[in-house]
Amino acid sequence: MDCKAYVFDVIGTLTDWRTGLREAFEEVLVRHGDAGKVDADAFAVEWHEEYMKGVRQVAATAQPGEPYMNLDVLLRHILTTIVLPRVGYTERLSETEIDALVYGWHNFKAHPEVPAQLRRWRAKDGPYLAPLSNSNIKMLVDTCRHADLQFDLLTSSESFASYKPSPSVYLGAAKFMAVEPHVTCLVAAHYYDIKAAKKCGFKTVYLWRQGRSRGIGG
Amino acid sequence: MDCKAYVFDVIGTLTDWRTGLREAFEEVLVRHGDAGKVDADAFAVEWHEEYMKGVRQVAATAQPGEPYMNLDVLLRHILTTIVLPRVGYTERLSETEIDALVYGWHNFKAHPEVPAQLRRWRAKDGPYLAPLSNSNIKMLVDTCRHADLQFDLLTSSESFASYKPSPSVYLGAAKFMAVEPHVTCLVAAHYYDIKAAKKCGFKTVYLWRQGRSRGIGG
Repeated sequence: MDCKAYVFDVIGTLTDWRTGLREAFEEVLVRHGDAGKVDADAFAVEWHEEYMKGVRQVAATAQPGEPYMNLDVLLRHILTTIVLPRVGYTERLSETEIDALVYGWHNFKAHPEVPAQLRRWRAKDGPYLAPLSNSNIKMLVDTCRHADLQFDLLTSSESFASYKPSPSVYLGAAKFMAVEPHVTCLVAAHYYDIKAAKKCGFKTVYLWRQGRSRGIGG
Repeated sequence: MDCKAYVFDVIGTLTDWRTGLREAFEEVLVRHGDAGKVDADAFAVEWHEEYMKGVRQVAATAQPGEPYMNLDVLLRHILTTIVLPRVGYTERLSETEIDALVYGWHNFKAHPEVPAQLRRWRAKDGPYLAPLSNSNIKMLVDTCRHADLQFDLLTSSESFASYKPSPSVYLGAAKFMAVEPHVTCLVAAHYYDIKAAKKCGFKTVYLWRQGRSRGIGG
């Protein structure tokens, strides 16, 4: 393939959300003396699954010009209204603790091979490398720092006030980089993402990752 | 100052447009056997000055929703209609040669201390570092590669379909990064840029650079 830009899904494809969310919740449980009372891994999987449902719903139903809820806000809403009640954790968490859990999404570690691989792929006259993520821009900047991911530029669905798999995100990103969709390649570990990118005329590379959510993202 | 984001003017502040444009034009002159017939430095200064006039005009008069001419297109227009005639170079240049001259703007070298200084300033929990340039996004990506400039993210006036000193660019960039203007600092070698950023509530740092254009940018 002779693509001019390679864009990468981030959450799950380049970074390990599951470990990140589990550890962030375990910290809360330990602080409250509740370690072992709730399955922190189940909490992680629930939150990720509801995130996937949330962004798909926005992608399918959002109208141009409609108020846009970025991922930090959406995740906070899902956490407090769905995830904590569902895993049965009724302990009262402070606003700061809730913020810290949401901030956990800014702080995922990369899958081990990713930082070095990205560095190897970067070449002065090679294709552009960019994330194409449902993370908002602030979240992406923080993730890239924490996970040591070096890109040429950041493209976030936030710039297009929607979420993947809305076509506006893929086509917006290609326009943003001034490359044609047919010479842009999405690398992702989620079929829904691959499928949507293909429909927009992108080339795609599917990357298998262990430990995905219960099939919904995979 | 305790700013959450530092944004940098690029052309002239971080990179050396004058050497870049002079050398690109000298190549053309040599190829055509015209070396010494036209002052390549004067060519560089003319083009930069007309660029400054062009972007100021757009910034002052562009209306939201109006078709936007990005910097590659604007520079090409200025080169062929104003700069080449003005420096008296009537030799017929091919489209490829014109493109290569415009591409010269993607290819400026950094002022010598800049790459290492940017690397030193980057800290995991430190402020965001980003360019805030009139370069379009593709031009910025290329510049960052060629000049070895490492940022957390790229902010370009192209995202806001205008040019500095339009307030929409400064305020748009702050919103893009989700930081308040009063904790955002612009670093620039041009007074017009500093003045416009201050009006938007930014903190500013003026950086003196030798070899600016004939005062208009300085």
